[in-house]
Amino acid sequence: MSLLVVGSLAFDSIETPNGKVDDALGGSASFFSVVASFFTKPRLVGVVGQDFPPEHIQMFRAKGIDTSGLVTKEGKTFRWKGRYHQDMNSRDTLDVQLNVFGTFDPVLPKHFRDSRHVFLANSSPAIQAKVLDQVEKPEIVMADTMDLWINTEKKGLLELLPRLDGFLLNDSEALLLTGETNLVRAGHAVRKLGPKFVILKKGEHGAMLFSEAGVFVVPAYPTPHIVDPTGAGDSFAGGVLGSLAADSASSAADLKRAMAYGTVVASFTVEGFGLDRLGEITRKDLDARYQEYRKMLTF
Amino acid sequence: MSLLVVGSLAFDSIETPNGKVDDALGGSASFFSVVASFFTKPRLVGVVGQDFPPEHIQMFRAKGIDTSGLVTKEGKTFRWKGRYHQDMNSRDTLDVQLNVFGTFDPVLPKHFRDSRHVFLANSSPAIQAKVLDQVEKPEIVMADTMDLWINTEKKGLLELLPRLDGFLLNDSEALLLTGETNLVRAGHAVRKLGPKFVILKKGEHGAMLFSEAGVFVVPAYPTPHIVDPTGAGDSFAGGVLGSLAADSASSAADLKRAMAYGTVVASFTVEGFGLDRLGEITRKDLDARYQEYRKMLTF
Repeated sequence: MSLLVVGSLAFDSIETPNGKVDDALGGSASFFSVVASFFTKPRLVGVVGQDFPPEHIQMFRAKGIDTSGLVTKEGKTFRWKGRYHQDMNSRDTLDVQLNVFGTFDPVLPKHFRDSRHVFLANSSPAIQAKVLDQVEKPEIVMADTMDLWINTEKKGLLELLPRLDGFLLNDSEALLLTGETNLVRAGHAVRKLGPKFVILKKGEHGAMLFSEAGVFVVPAYPTPHIVDPTGAGDSFAGGVLGSLAADSASSAADLKRAMAYGTVVASFTVEGFGLDRLGEITRKDLDARYQEYRKMLTF
Repeated sequence: MSLLVVGSLAFDSIETPNGKVDDALGGSASFFSVVASFFTKPRLVGVVGQDFPPEHIQMFRAKGIDTSGLVTKEGKTFRWKGRYHQDMNSRDTLDVQLNVFGTFDPVLPKHFRDSRHVFLANSSPAIQAKVLDQVEKPEIVMADTMDLWINTEKKGLLELLPRLDGFLLNDSEALLLTGETNLVRAGHAVRKLGPKFVILKKGEHGAMLFSEAGVFVVPAYPTPHIVDPTGAGDSFAGGVLGSLAADSASSAADLKRAMAYGTVVASFTVEGFGLDRLGEITRKDLDARYQEYRKMLTF
């Protein structure tokens, strides 16, 4: 029941076919920790600039998130600006200002070092490894990545993979990393690189889990109200690791349940801009949709 | 237990990244009827040329398919030639020779008119309606279509839809037909056009069912051995309607089971060229994978 997340906090300016928002609170660690707070009391490590409003930190704390690892640095918070295409499956990045996140060198508060569950949100494999070095005896370590690191720091990534329990990546990233053209073969191939289990994220088409128990596939929950896909992947990760941490569980059956929780919570995330929708729902709403989803898949 | 299929029989010449085949037996009615023969004794209506070898007709009969509606006309059998791209999700049509299928005017043998289950494979809505006029008292009518008819015979298609129980179409065709950009909304919108249930086929990403019971989504069975995707959609349809016909069932639960059978049988089809893989398996193999798939989706 000690879940650590290290990742980004950002201000996102987003345009979608359904509207736009400026400077919404975002970043991998924001989505992950808010979602994980439905399951446990997450520990957050990240960096923000002096422009980061205290209300956001208050919001995190109100959700039971331990913000001792949230550092405020001189300068501005990470900013991202993007525009989604009509089908919401692809987007253009219009502007990135790394600001204080560009020199992020995460140091865990001493009382975070005994964390049993760890999520290394997307950042360079070197940073991810450095964080992992600071955790004394992790039980389940999960990491995310992106095409940038596969293209520029493949060696570091390949060194990190055997240290992971779970590795999350997008379908296209799995193809890029393995040179495969088929997702099933790519998933198996990524698992051979070291992680105990691999999760391929397919956006609106759901996700696939590759573990020693074989392949498990989940469709996305079919919400018709997609407003903003930003944060879906990190929300999914928060649901997966949050539910595993809450149950201190890692069997094949636990992983399947975790995948389902990840799917359901991500379906809420995309129903609003930024963290809006996650801020409206309770654990009861989450569980109700989980049961509906479970029933939907039973035949 | 009287399942009628009206559609094409063809010789397919196919290139995929895994190999090539010339003049393989194909066509919607071939795939559908061979799959449906795992569940019941299908009735086949179609047209072939004088070049159609008697062995193929023998093969159909050996599977319990009633070929009384298979007409041989002067001329050549429908031929299609295509090449799949590296990812197997898209293909180029290199050549089409409609031959005798170009003037196909299906007339049901008298003893086919009492068919209770009917599959109108992809052809013009006018032809599909004409077939349906000849069936006395159908219980479940399912039809497929393609982008060509949405673009060129939309009026005829819109007239046909209220006469259908089930309507199958690809994800891109559903977006084209409805003008929607979201598959969930598109599925609901297609259903409002008349059919009792709508099935959106998403290829390697599975399928979605829209019915009065709501939305049901199934992922594709994750076979790593994709050799040739040709016929997957018609195999899926054969599994769906075959299992409904065998059980004379149409409840929400029956439809879900039918979707699962369609998914599983299509996963066999794509493991070989043309009908090769379907020719190798037995109902026992199908049921074994069905149980595995069911277990895979249970959490």
